[in-house]
Amino acid sequence: MPERITLYSAKVCPWAHRAELALKESKLPYKRYEIDLANKPEWYAPKVNPASKVPAIAYGGPDVSPDTPSPESIKLAESGVLIEFIADIAPEANLLPKDPVARAKARFFVETVMSKWSAVYYSVLQGNAEPSVLLGVLEVIQDLLPKDGYAIGEWSIADAAVTPFFARAEVILSNDIGKYPVGKGVETWSVIQNDAKYARFRKYFQDLKNRDSFKETFFPVSRQGSLLLWGGTDVNLFCDR
Amino acid sequence: MPERITLYSAKVCPWAHRAELALKESKLPYKRYEIDLANKPEWYAPKVNPASKVPAIAYGGPDVSPDTPSPESIKLAESGVLIEFIADIAPEANLLPKDPVARAKARFFVETVMSKWSAVYYSVLQGNAEPSVLLGVLEVIQDLLPKDGYAIGEWSIADAAVTPFFARAEVILSNDIGKYPVGKGVETWSVIQNDAKYARFRKYFQDLKNRDSFKETFFPVSRQGSLLLWGGTDVNLFCDR
Repeated sequence: MPERITLYSAKVCPWAHRAELALKESKLPYKRYEIDLANKPEWYAPKVNPASKVPAIAYGGPDVSPDTPSPESIKLAESGVLIEFIADIAPEANLLPKDPVARAKARFFVETVMSKWSAVYYSVLQGNAEPSVLLGVLEVIQDLLPKDGYAIGEWSIADAAVTPFFARAEVILSNDIGKYPVGKGVETWSVIQNDAKYARFRKYFQDLKNRDSFKETFFPVSRQGSLLLWGGTDVNLFCDR
Repeated sequence: MPERITLYSAKVCPWAHRAELALKESKLPYKRYEIDLANKPEWYAPKVNPASKVPAIAYGGPDVSPDTPSPESIKLAESGVLIEFIADIAPEANLLPKDPVARAKARFFVETVMSKWSAVYYSVLQGNAEPSVLLGVLEVIQDLLPKDGYAIGEWSIADAAVTPFFARAEVILSNDIGKYPVGKGVETWSVIQNDAKYARFRKYFQDLKNRDSFKETFFPVSRQGSLLLWGGTDVNLFCDR
């Protein structure tokens, strides 16, 4: 029997979403516990993650309720660490290929996409850059993608690592949420949706969204307040790699 | 016969040093080519790393001189990607353990040390924080270390990832290099060297420096100019994860 897994997550948090996508794709059984980032349970930091952030995983130990974590389970944190861990404990799910070069390409994809994306995305939300600067980043991402399929062809944890950020960008831009001029988010999303130049990214993003793992784990919230939280700095205090 | 490996590196660059430590520990044969970061060869970006940074690895392909890279070799970059790659191609060297939990702990160690260290170290060099703030970071690092041995007990790529930064900090602080008040670097290094509070870090750092892989790859330069380059922003333009 595999070891017990409890994932501590939060629907708003893209970093936590990474781990949840990887767990879904692993087909391993797990319990999920939603942490309210604005009102965290007092047992969370002392008993699960001293950094008080999501995602975190309790691995092994006895069958307990997630809100009374056992000291006997191993507690792990950091989304990048967790998705590698999930790939390691579910080798039959092929969340990372066996070939060292393909593994390196998967990890390089994540490093490159995240550094290019982060350098621009938060500036856009804070009104320090126009949403259209994201188009340049999408061109870089497209150039990294193979002709067909996911980041390295077959779906891998590289895709789990980036999907949450694209999914939230769609909601934010297409709802014009952010400190940029009104209309600019919708305008940029429309270019991404329609311009032939972004066809490869568009296909990749649609392939990502078509997976059951995505449909079962992404919860766009229509209330403006919740959407804002995704882009603001508040959530970053608790929701982090 | 294993695939051919050429490492493009630069002695001043801590990120490149990571890959070099991992390669030494792997016992795999490789060629090393020094890139002068202030005067990069014109073939480097088009033929090895489009981002024009070190470290990079050319893997496989025919036996060529490093300065005429073959299009048939695979080019890989990003130090974090490379050390995982080196562990993957040299499984018998045990650069990462097989146990998924131990692997997660190794990766968590790197994430935590690097984020805590980076948040403070460059502020110190730029005179925005006193060198003594590094002491708090060392306490965090000590708490992550097991009672004996390296980051997760046996030496692993987690140690390759952090060693270059500690080694450069020693040179910089003990030579009082940085924009902080004169004497403060030496003073902080003296505390690290003598205060019982930092005994565990001191032992860890000494264990790291005692390894042949370190002795064969670290080249402290006594000229003030070269030392400054290590801490300045110039080197970061070319030398990056």
